[in-house]
Amino acid sequence: MSGTAQIGVTGLAVMGRNLARNFARNGFTVAVHNRTTSRTDALVKEFGEEGTFVAAHTPEEFVAALERPRRLVIMVKAGDPTDAVIQEFAPLLQDGDVIIDGGNAHFEDTRRREKELRERGIHFVGAGISGGEEGALHGPSIMPGGSAESYASLGPMLEKIAAQAKDGTPCTAHIGPDGAGHFVKMVHNGIEYADMQLIAEAYDLLRRVAGYSPARIAETFRSWNTGRLDSYLIEITAEVLAHTDAATGKPFVDIVQDRAEQKGTGRWTVQIALDLGVPVSGIAEAVFARSLSGHVDLREASRELPGPVAKPLEGAEASAFADRVEQALYASKIVSYTQGFHQIRAGSEAYDWDIDLGSVAAIWRAGCIIRAAFLDRIRAAYDSRPELVSLLSDEEFGREIGEAQDDWRAVVAEAARQGVPTPGFAAALSYYDGLRADRLPAALTQGQRDFFGAHTYRRTDREGSFHTLWGGDRSEVGAG
Amino acid sequence: MSGTAQIGVTGLAVMGRNLARNFARNGFTVAVHNRTTSRTDALVKEFGEEGTFVAAHTPEEFVAALERPRRLVIMVKAGDPTDAVIQEFAPLLQDGDVIIDGGNAHFEDTRRREKELRERGIHFVGAGISGGEEGALHGPSIMPGGSAESYASLGPMLEKIAAQAKDGTPCTAHIGPDGAGHFVKMVHNGIEYADMQLIAEAYDLLRRVAGYSPARIAETFRSWNTGRLDSYLIEITAEVLAHTDAATGKPFVDIVQDRAEQKGTGRWTVQIALDLGVPVSGIAEAVFARSLSGHVDLREASRELPGPVAKPLEGAEASAFADRVEQALYASKIVSYTQGFHQIRAGSEAYDWDIDLGSVAAIWRAGCIIRAAFLDRIRAAYDSRPELVSLLSDEEFGREIGEAQDDWRAVVAEAARQGVPTPGFAAALSYYDGLRADRLPAALTQGQRDFFGAHTYRRTDREGSFHTLWGGDRSEVGAG
Repeated sequence: MSGTAQIGVTGLAVMGRNLARNFARNGFTVAVHNRTTSRTDALVKEFGEEGTFVAAHTPEEFVAALERPRRLVIMVKAGDPTDAVIQEFAPLLQDGDVIIDGGNAHFEDTRRREKELRERGIHFVGAGISGGEEGALHGPSIMPGGSAESYASLGPMLEKIAAQAKDGTPCTAHIGPDGAGHFVKMVHNGIEYADMQLIAEAYDLLRRVAGYSPARIAETFRSWNTGRLDSYLIEITAEVLAHTDAATGKPFVDIVQDRAEQKGTGRWTVQIALDLGVPVSGIAEAVFARSLSGHVDLREASRELPGPVAKPLEGAEASAFADRVEQALYASKIVSYTQGFHQIRAGSEAYDWDIDLGSVAAIWRAGCIIRAAFLDRIRAAYDSRPELVSLLSDEEFGREIGEAQDDWRAVVAEAARQGVPTPGFAAALSYYDGLRADRLPAALTQGQRDFFGAHTYRRTDREGSFHTLWGGDRSEVGAG
Repeated sequence: MSGTAQIGVTGLAVMGRNLARNFARNGFTVAVHNRTTSRTDALVKEFGEEGTFVAAHTPEEFVAALERPRRLVIMVKAGDPTDAVIQEFAPLLQDGDVIIDGGNAHFEDTRRREKELRERGIHFVGAGISGGEEGALHGPSIMPGGSAESYASLGPMLEKIAAQAKDGTPCTAHIGPDGAGHFVKMVHNGIEYADMQLIAEAYDLLRRVAGYSPARIAETFRSWNTGRLDSYLIEITAEVLAHTDAATGKPFVDIVQDRAEQKGTGRWTVQIALDLGVPVSGIAEAVFARSLSGHVDLREASRELPGPVAKPLEGAEASAFADRVEQALYASKIVSYTQGFHQIRAGSEAYDWDIDLGSVAAIWRAGCIIRAAFLDRIRAAYDSRPELVSLLSDEEFGREIGEAQDDWRAVVAEAARQGVPTPGFAAALSYYDGLRADRLPAALTQGQRDFFGAHTYRRTDREGSFHTLWGGDRSEVGAG
């Protein structure tokens, strides 16, 4: 038995509900299902006129409502709830049907699920969806993994409901097999953490070193948003900073507790980067900065530690400093994306995903939280040189960071002197200077490791591994 | 049937062999066993006169040679080989016998093994052992986990073979239940990574900014080693830097490839810190610096990136800068240990281990790679205030870092200007300035999160969670 709905959505909390409406608004017949059936009925009652919904009250009704091959989107919490729903529906499905997990699953879970379901003849697509509630309704950026065959059936529908970049292309594409979609979504979120941390540091410097008020900083971000930093996050930063708290009449940002929270994806990004051997210091510092802010006990115990009190600049000096902060922010942002795309390339190689980096940049241009004009330039860089080993070796980005670096260095130096923490700016600069160094002190590290652990070293002038008899006559022996 | 050996060691590669000899030299009867029996015989033949060994050629012989309760040390590779040996021996053991894993196991594996064996009536002790081959023979720092009952039987033996601190106390103590020992050993290694990175940065700055030769830097480290930085790693740094390559006549450090390698423990430390929500930026930057150095393709592609060429200082300016580097190194080191001990405290709370931080510092004072005079001061700090929330809030360390900070800031600033990467120094400084900040820009981060994801925020002036209707009239609503 097969039904008429082209797609089904189970799990009708706000993300699932908005995604279902998005499909319906785009002309698809959408089967909807929720464990608590009142939520299903409420959706159809409230938004029924937006398109064609089929309300299903049981898993069996839901599956029966779908045309073959069935396309069934799961929008429930990551982890055990996702496994539970998969186990509930899989026995009702047939060869060639497609389950799509639109939650924020860990890509290793997605790999496991894909393999298990593949053995049962069912396609499993882990699809990263970014853009929040509004994106789900009006057009998110969608990063589907899974088999190419599943994308042939599913892709055209995703392309209809996804955001569109300015050039009209949809912000979705087949990322690669099994967990590739959730992996790329994870790195997207890691980059989002880094972007937000860099913005936070820029704000802090404008406030404490340039001496600007939140309103003036809002203006500054608004003007930055008309240039190369043009992006959703810069735009909403201006909105948040311009907002006045109605209850107190104070700037909103001053009445919010300065303890940043986080879910898991930033942390996952760093943990996986460590496994892959990719330095993602910008993302790591962003995650650490959030956790540091939340350690109220440590902060309380450290309030009296000595240090400078930043002395705000005035007049032309202040605005010159603000310009330098823009350069530092932009340069650090290039580094963050360099690190993030390095991680995607490394993941693609490790898992044999063959991810098109230009395509990833392209589908992040709209719909998602990190959407930005900047991403069109990353797309162009990878499209013209798909083998590009690092964004920093793109001619344009290399030139820009070169032009920004004097100011970037001045800002990091000034922050250190004035006692304003800039973990993101400073980590990005160290990464840049580390990569361009002729020689790194890693040679000393290797010497120490050979000294205390006989870990051996390589020489610059000969092949092979060597060990120095540090405890003996200090002669050198070959070590294979 | 039970034998006369007080302890047994299986796995007679260099670490196992040296540990067995150490027990024998201290008067214990030691049963020795190795899968390849020739190695067992070779040990007894070569070192038999050092003490009393019982050579066992089969697992059954080995177990039979041990007095009850049996104490059996496994010295094989971490991971599957350890599980294989446990599965081989466990069926031969009886209630109350003790298996000790002296390898570098992940503490979560140790927790799993301890639980499984406990259910079979066998004590399992994951014991971190630091000090390398020499330490194993002459006295390592030993960090045993497992039950208090097992320590009652095993501890006195470990106390005999462990290194001794200057005050004569042995460098071992019962760390806590199940995986506590391997956890603390993991953090020890993470701190070791951070120490080595900070030393590498100091060397790089002395070389490129102070313009010192390796020989002169060796002298500098030698003189630092007579002060508060007195430690094994500073000592061997001087040795490595003073060494001349016989083949070329060049400084040894200049003929070693500048690509640092690593095993897993630094990475594990950061990954677990992320799970625990503890900022360990110093350790993370150390791990990243090693992986960056190994990315030859990225470095090759980045060589031409623009940046300053450091201009070496001269005369008194150079030596004044070198003094500032000592301050920066010392201050950054305090931060590394602050972060590492925070992680141990957090792990102890998360797993209910009740770890005595003063005791951890005490058993690191000798035998292990990070042994240092400094650790006696950390011991004193925790002994006098066991509830100390952060090393930085110890009066002495707070005072010292306060005195060091002007120079520390100047060094970070100068490195940024001159293009010398100092990820460790800079991360430590940002951590310090972040903790002492009255207000952090995390408030802006929370505002952004509420804007794009309705994640809510807390207010400084009222209890509860709130959400601003950003897409609406921007009024504020309670959110529970």
